[in-house]
Amino acid sequence: MAKSIFYHAGCPVCVSAEQDILNLINPADVEVVHLGTDRSRIADAENKGVKSVPALVTPNGHVLHINFGASMADVKG
Amino acid sequence: MAKSIFYHAGCPVCVSAEQDILNLINPADVEVVHLGTDRSRIADAENKGVKSVPALVTPNGHVLHINFGASMADVKG
Repeated sequence: MAKSIFYHAGCPVCVSAEQDILNLINPADVEVVHLGTDRSRIADAENKGVKSVPALVTPNGHVLHINFGASMADVKG
Repeated sequence: MAKSIFYHAGCPVCVSAEQDILNLINPADVEVVHLGTDRSRIADAENKGVKSVPALVTPNGHVLHINFGASMADVKG
């Protein structure tokens, strides 16, 4: 199975959602990307349709925005 | 493992998110509740902290609001 990608930026809402997602989905099936520290991935996340973090991009390319931690504008600072 | 509960109201955003969630999580671990047709569950969902649908309540009681289909006020009509 292709992996999902969980994008976050270290915010409290992100960390809580990450723990919940990794409890629900096999962690081996999820790549976790911290956009605050891995800034080279920001453009890729935006191209996938990520508008805010935390967000989960499914293997079929759907974006699930989970709760609301920060907008991508905030992430880009 | 305790089940998660996926609340929705039949809206297009809800249906899409439901399919994504059931692809990611073992369907046997998720109870799906349609608040539009099972209106007796609305108060329970609100008590759990659900503010909008679709939303997933995890076994530990956290509420993951996924994208945005409709507010609970809309659901209550």
